Amino acid sequence: MARPGMRVAISVPDTVLEEKASPREKMTKLGLIARACAIYGVDVIEVFRDPLGRGESKLIRTVLEYLETPQYLRKRLYPLDETLRYAGMLPPLRIPSHKAKVPTSSILSGEVREGVVNRDGTVDIGLDAAPLLEGGGQPGRRVTVKVSSLSPLTARVIQRQQVGSYWGYTVETKTVEESLSDRRFPLKVATSKFGTPVVDTVERLRTALRVSQSVKMIFGSPSRGLFNIVGRNLPGRVDFVVNLFPEQQAETVRTEEAIFAGLGIVSLLFAEKA
Amino acid sequence: MARPGMRVAISVPDTVLEEKASPREKMTKLGLIARACAIYGVDVIEVFRDPLGRGESKLIRTVLEYLETPQYLRKRLYPLDETLRYAGMLPPLRIPSHKAKVPTSSILSGEVREGVVNRDGTVDIGLDAAPLLEGGGQPGRRVTVKVSSLSPLTARVIQRQQVGSYWGYTVETKTVEESLSDRRFPLKVATSKFGTPVVDTVERLRTALRVSQSVKMIFGSPSRGLFNIVGRNLPGRVDFVVNLFPEQQAETVRTEEAIFAGLGIVSLLFAEKA
Repeated sequence: MARPGMRVAISVPDTVLEEKASPREKMTKLGLIARACAIYGVDVIEVFRDPLGRGESKLIRTVLEYLETPQYLRKRLYPLDETLRYAGMLPPLRIPSHKAKVPTSSILSGEVREGVVNRDGTVDIGLDAAPLLEGGGQPGRRVTVKVSSLSPLTARVIQRQQVGSYWGYTVETKTVEESLSDRRFPLKVATSKFGTPVVDTVERLRTALRVSQSVKMIFGSPSRGLFNIVGRNLPGRVDFVVNLFPEQQAETVRTEEAIFAGLGIVSLLFAEKA
Repeated sequence: MARPGMRVAISVPDTVLEEKASPREKMTKLGLIARACAIYGVDVIEVFRDPLGRGESKLIRTVLEYLETPQYLRKRLYPLDETLRYAGMLPPLRIPSHKAKVPTSSILSGEVREGVVNRDGTVDIGLDAAPLLEGGGQPGRRVTVKVSSLSPLTARVIQRQQVGSYWGYTVETKTVEESLSDRRFPLKVATSKFGTPVVDTVERLRTALRVSQSVKMIFGSPSRGLFNIVGRNLPGRVDFVVNLFPEQQAETVRTEEAIFAGLGIVSLLFAEKA
């Protein structure tokens, strides 16, 4: 995220859209979640199954992945998907991976771009010419590649962590259990209006963030908080249960609003000088 | 805002909607600004004239005031306003002043409600019966009143600061000069991508907030930051020029996103123990 080496995940239930009636409102909400993740450099968005509700994990995942896809690959990866009718009108993320479609002559060796593997062993990275893909790949698959040679134009698949700076987020679907036992993000912060006011735990949280250099922030759904979803044992399953809005003046806070606030606080605490 | 005695204002240019083409998108943006202000208990929203752009202060003010109006007064104060067609569909603020329309019998003496002055010297506060207004008032005017007697049902106008807890925001239109020289909010914090990273100024900011117990946060427009609008002397006109997103990963941050982040930080710093 914000700084090299730091990794941030957010985890939202698949019922996060439950109070939104129209496709357009659902898209607006997902667009805001995606924007918050782009601004604060979130690496992973988890969508976990809310066992108490009728989830929409497929829709959520599709839209969030679509928004994270560079413009030049969208038509190819999402041909005529009715779900995405309104998603195309949402504010763009403008993250580093969203590069322009450029002439091949302007490409430098070592450049990193998102691509889709072609059937002929090349990779479409939004140029006039498609570079050969070292070692090949599964056709239709989305990959992050680094241009390894200009003549012949060749690229090889790299891991996102190898890009060296923030690149974009990935979307994963999980069960609650899988999310809570995820070892990639040992520090887990649940958000709940029954949690400790964030201001009372800010010192401990700052220290924990510095030690772990990563964090997963877990949010509830509009009608059910995490104490409902995970159960009374929530504090035993995570490191912190924080109330991000102990003095909130509006009766309810929406998940996307809580994500902005939570990421803002975590980002500040990560960055503050010791 | 968050705590009794603390007062918070935000200040946005009247060109804040400039990149939004459709009425619906404009409304969505204003709805988010209003939600941020409701959650963090903003007292005053200032709309200042951006001398470099074609502003929409009337639209902005109307919509923000409409959203702040309790449901039971909306039809009366905003009859058939085409501007507000989409605004009625925005998420409600659910602030303390948004009380339900209730039977008169359930009213208690001392209760505070928003109202509109009637021609006959009574005030419409969303009950079956309209209380007499002590001292009268200008018909059609919106007022905050306290029920002073149940028999005969009587109410008197009070100032919002007298409510004793957060009630809602007011909207004001101003010139840049008026905004910068406003003595009600001596502590002024401008936001700019050319400002000091917020993390580097957090200690000074925390102290300043505690001393002044109030703050005005000033934001730029999508195409022009505050250094453009106010000029190079910006740092001489305000107490802080902060960059809220020194490590932002998206190329641009929208004003409504900056408002969420800025209010979140200020709210945390206000609340933190010394």
